[in-house]
Amino acid sequence: MHIDRILPAFLLAGFAFVANAEVVKSPDGKVAVDFDVKNGVPTYSMTFDGKTVIKPSALGLELVDAPNLIDGFRLKDTKTSEFDETWQPVWGETRDIRNHYNELLACLEQPETGRLMNIRFRVYDDGMGFRYEFPLQDNLTYFVVKEEHSQFAMDGDHTAWWIAGDYDTQEYDYTESKLSEIRYKMAEAITSNASQTQFSPTGVQTSLQMKTDNGLYINIHEAALVDYSCMHLNLDDKNMVFESWLTPDAQGNKGHLQAPTHSPWRTVMVSDDARDMLSSNLILNLNDPCAYEDTSWIKPVKYVGVWWEMIGGGKQWSYTYDLPSVKLETLDYSKTKPHGQHPANNENVKKYIDFAAEHGFDQVLVEGWNIGWEDWFGKSKDYVFDFQTPYPDFDIKMLNDYAHSKGVKLMMHHETSGSIRNYERHMEAAYNLMNKYGYNSVKSGYVGNMIPRGEHHYGQWLNNHYLYAVKEAAKHKIMVNAHEAVRPTGLCRTYPNLIGNESARGTEYESFAGNKPSHTTVLPFTRLQGGPMDYTPGIFEMDMKKVNPNSQGHVNSTLARQLALYVTMYSPLQMAADVPEVYNRFMDAFQFIKDVPVDWDDSHYLEAEPGQYIVAARKAKGGDDWYIGCTSGENGHVSDLSLDFLDPGKKYEATIYADAPDAHYLTNPQAYKISKKKVTSKTRLKLKAAPGGGFAISIKPLD
Amino acid sequence: MHIDRILPAFLLAGFAFVANAEVVKSPDGKVAVDFDVKNGVPTYSMTFDGKTVIKPSALGLELVDAPNLIDGFRLKDTKTSEFDETWQPVWGETRDIRNHYNELLACLEQPETGRLMNIRFRVYDDGMGFRYEFPLQDNLTYFVVKEEHSQFAMDGDHTAWWIAGDYDTQEYDYTESKLSEIRYKMAEAITSNASQTQFSPTGVQTSLQMKTDNGLYINIHEAALVDYSCMHLNLDDKNMVFESWLTPDAQGNKGHLQAPTHSPWRTVMVSDDARDMLSSNLILNLNDPCAYEDTSWIKPVKYVGVWWEMIGGGKQWSYTYDLPSVKLETLDYSKTKPHGQHPANNENVKKYIDFAAEHGFDQVLVEGWNIGWEDWFGKSKDYVFDFQTPYPDFDIKMLNDYAHSKGVKLMMHHETSGSIRNYERHMEAAYNLMNKYGYNSVKSGYVGNMIPRGEHHYGQWLNNHYLYAVKEAAKHKIMVNAHEAVRPTGLCRTYPNLIGNESARGTEYESFAGNKPSHTTVLPFTRLQGGPMDYTPGIFEMDMKKVNPNSQGHVNSTLARQLALYVTMYSPLQMAADVPEVYNRFMDAFQFIKDVPVDWDDSHYLEAEPGQYIVAARKAKGGDDWYIGCTSGENGHVSDLSLDFLDPGKKYEATIYADAPDAHYLTNPQAYKISKKKVTSKTRLKLKAAPGGGFAISIKPLD
Repeated sequence: MHIDRILPAFLLAGFAFVANAEVVKSPDGKVAVDFDVKNGVPTYSMTFDGKTVIKPSALGLELVDAPNLIDGFRLKDTKTSEFDETWQPVWGETRDIRNHYNELLACLEQPETGRLMNIRFRVYDDGMGFRYEFPLQDNLTYFVVKEEHSQFAMDGDHTAWWIAGDYDTQEYDYTESKLSEIRYKMAEAITSNASQTQFSPTGVQTSLQMKTDNGLYINIHEAALVDYSCMHLNLDDKNMVFESWLTPDAQGNKGHLQAPTHSPWRTVMVSDDARDMLSSNLILNLNDPCAYEDTSWIKPVKYVGVWWEMIGGGKQWSYTYDLPSVKLETLDYSKTKPHGQHPANNENVKKYIDFAAEHGFDQVLVEGWNIGWEDWFGKSKDYVFDFQTPYPDFDIKMLNDYAHSKGVKLMMHHETSGSIRNYERHMEAAYNLMNKYGYNSVKSGYVGNMIPRGEHHYGQWLNNHYLYAVKEAAKHKIMVNAHEAVRPTGLCRTYPNLIGNESARGTEYESFAGNKPSHTTVLPFTRLQGGPMDYTPGIFEMDMKKVNPNSQGHVNSTLARQLALYVTMYSPLQMAADVPEVYNRFMDAFQFIKDVPVDWDDSHYLEAEPGQYIVAARKAKGGDDWYIGCTSGENGHVSDLSLDFLDPGKKYEATIYADAPDAHYLTNPQAYKISKKKVTSKTRLKLKAAPGGGFAISIKPLD
Repeated sequence: MHIDRILPAFLLAGFAFVANAEVVKSPDGKVAVDFDVKNGVPTYSMTFDGKTVIKPSALGLELVDAPNLIDGFRLKDTKTSEFDETWQPVWGETRDIRNHYNELLACLEQPETGRLMNIRFRVYDDGMGFRYEFPLQDNLTYFVVKEEHSQFAMDGDHTAWWIAGDYDTQEYDYTESKLSEIRYKMAEAITSNASQTQFSPTGVQTSLQMKTDNGLYINIHEAALVDYSCMHLNLDDKNMVFESWLTPDAQGNKGHLQAPTHSPWRTVMVSDDARDMLSSNLILNLNDPCAYEDTSWIKPVKYVGVWWEMIGGGKQWSYTYDLPSVKLETLDYSKTKPHGQHPANNENVKKYIDFAAEHGFDQVLVEGWNIGWEDWFGKSKDYVFDFQTPYPDFDIKMLNDYAHSKGVKLMMHHETSGSIRNYERHMEAAYNLMNKYGYNSVKSGYVGNMIPRGEHHYGQWLNNHYLYAVKEAAKHKIMVNAHEAVRPTGLCRTYPNLIGNESARGTEYESFAGNKPSHTTVLPFTRLQGGPMDYTPGIFEMDMKKVNPNSQGHVNSTLARQLALYVTMYSPLQMAADVPEVYNRFMDAFQFIKDVPVDWDDSHYLEAEPGQYIVAARKAKGGDDWYIGCTSGENGHVSDLSLDFLDPGKKYEATIYADAPDAHYLTNPQAYKISKKKVTSKTRLKLKAAPGGGFAISIKPLD
């Protein structure tokens, strides 16, 4: 934040201001960002290979009860620098990540108010990020943001893959449309959710993936969302200008800041190759390095769990139907009649532990283990769970001991029902309980409207909470997988015990109503930009009626594609979400899930087009095996893959889990074919994915 | 909550409803409460000795997004019962407290909605309480209160001692006026405060003390305020009808309830003798018995402290002037210049410890011991204190060890700056720190606007917090003295580690601007009804300019009255608030403060008139000594006291600390005279209190 180099121009006169626009280019020179102060307004634009990415766009913030930080600025100083380092993530898609950028720090002064605001740009080969910085100063210490007005002016009516802007949910299906169509498709794009608050007919969420008519892929998101409210984008669809739209607090304000401080990074990724969107590390690179000295306790997790029985199977988290009004203070299950539909019981959990042990899974998630589920949702209930007391039929000590005796851990579950004060009050005791019984990971949940009432899932208050939960967990060597929390922005680099988030429609929606077949061809371009998703793939029984006669759901995917998702949906946390009974019917296909790693030394995106298909190849961490996955949308996909990433001269055996020729996500999803084939780095593989289908390949060295 | 006795009338027909009004009288028959359902509206009235106390008044609640609970009711059942028990408080004004009442439970049904609401009345010899009860039922489980409409219809334009209704402060001077004058005196009654939110030109706070033209004293308050928002009173000054006005939350709602539940008690105390208002235990009796099995760790406390130096003396809680923007995460005092005005330093605290040890005080409060005070107030700052890290010049271990070696404890101080989440996040660690170093009591503070932003000091959210802090403290055997918290409602019976509250203008206002001379003749009628106040008396230097040249303050009291307050302002927690240097100048008078107990076996109110004078006599817990205190208002007071409460036949020596004949709170406050006198139970003492004066007497057996 300190200005330690004065430009020569500035040396000539103490009160002179830098007059010229500044251009900063990416290391390879392809991306250029132009910054200027025009009529007192900070303005930037961006090009890729000479093509316009962002037209001249204004930057600034509107404050509450204070003059705005929008205009009246003068450029006081600029500083440029280059940065190049390679770092190793605790877990990730690749062993090494290069962080290489050119930086411009523009130091602005608003002479009428005597206030200072800096804007820092970092320009990478695959995009750029900027953020506002507020140095320590006399006339701006505590301030309240009414709105951030960061503009992103588009150069045309691009195609976008978008979900509705919402302060409380990201669980929407993606809509592919022209920017100009957003307004007209909004009503259809908004489906119901447990907690939702839209704000504009042209409001969308980040990460927003776009494609221009001249073949550029543009992605807008944010990085390092800390102590700030989450940014949405509102489109002026006359001029095709996006503007930042922050999440308000209960009083309608959008951020309480204290200088010295800064905003999160606002990111614009760009390339003429869709695959670069997927392999980009720009978001991670804009986050701080790991905050923990010891990370040896952070380990990727492949797990099964007592969950799909409830989500898809109609079983219950609760224990009894006898309690219409639960008060934990006085709760007594001894007088209630169990309804017998509670799978988080000793016998069933042992069955899952046995299954996990037999097939090499690390952990078993158990939801519905703790008291209070009879009366937990949609009531704005404060003391809703205690996160500590098991149901009478869940012997927490016995089950953990049993699991450990088989080399398996249980995974903890903390549903908060959005009651944040209550969770924080119990957090230390809950984490202590986990330590006591040997849990090292927790799936947390934030279903429903928030308490403090009036706060939103993506506001500053909650963002502070989510990170608090992760940092407190770290003190207990606990990994966190937070569902319904704010969308990730690369914080897993700094806090790698944040091993997963939901923050989008996961597989559960297949049982509720189904995601579009294209869903998993969009998510890696959007939701996954910020960090891994606990997507919970691996559903082998697509016809939900067979699981639960009351269900209308259908999993819009072939079985082969379910395997592919373990590769295409990068995450250090992967669930095999279906029930053991189903897996036992398809043990040959299940073998891929058993084999596929959850941590990698290298990754290549072989083919990609948002909404159409993604083919990824990854090399196992510390191993020589490679895994390939393909997911495709409504149209299916024909792949022609070069395996030139394999070691030259080495021979491998590929096991190919492919859609059968007559497979189709709707009519014939379980039709798959497994074949083996010898391959080398010179092999080309031609494979066909059915509509809503895909394929998965494991490639193991023969020698 | 269960109806276990069916009235004979009800036996005749299963669907019949009780048609007649119900009358329930106090055990002595003097207080009568009449309950009826008139045109579907629950209605009550109240008399004392045949005189009207409450004219027919409606009861009910308005709900959010649900039909109201105001009318359409039928009386389904009633139940009457009598209760008589005597219990012993952990600390108190008397060793035994009798809880003797007749009860009426009116069970109401609202046939159109199928909802049930009960109203329970308890009628005592000195008043009554009622509350709403919501039994477990099908059609009313979770509900949101828009407003409670409990009416208290007055029978005339009474004289009232009132402070402005406010969601965030009680720190107002009392105004004495006719009810009809409230509206016109409101502007003058509202003085500025760090956080304040008025709601109505005729809104006042409870406990509200009134006097009727025919000599009745009436007091309206509430008891057992738990999981509900605090009640104010709004006056319809055409009809002289008070109506409940609850404190809203950030969204404007006034309570989130879950059946089975009930409201706090709404209390109306009445007598034709003002002294009965002071000796009443009605509020305590309406609270639940002690919730703790072991109370041996709860001990009354007499203390001195590093405090008046800052409040009155211009010293600082902070350590340096070098930090305009403190962030605790990165705070480093090693590079700052101490401003040298920080009395919470080792040397000065040791001086206080020495003083406390020499004069028999239990504890030494130290404010400003912890980091962050450079930048703590009025910024809506979230992470404002950590409650754990001492300033560089405060050696927490050494000072506690030093204190303990002299038989003294330090008293902890937790100022929250209203940042509640932050306090709760640090609470366990802060209490652990107290346990580690041997603190057993904490003065907590809630200065300024609340975080969660938009919540008010007296709303349900905060009321929940205050009680949480007390209950969590109990787990650590810690006593709590919470300042700026909600006014007490007798919860100290149930949670006797709540040994004090502020919740009104305390002595600190003497240094700020001065309280009216009558202030301490009103507080025992109002603020003290709900529980003890940490009033911090004992100021011997009234001219604040002599303490701090920048001060304009003047303590509106004589020195003798400062002594009396230790008797008239009952509290198990009493501070001697002035600095040792001042006490050393008046050691003869200071002897009374050294002698006076903070716990009692018996109490008698000898003379009392709100706004004019209060004379109380109390017998030391487990001893034979008696202590008398008199406080008087602007007009002074002439007392003619019978000592018939003394043991007959026993001889005593009384030490009388009286105003000198020429004493006056403004012009000659330090003029006092100490005399000794032999007394028996037959003695009558005639004593004169100067304007704003008083007297204090210790009476010790001679044999």
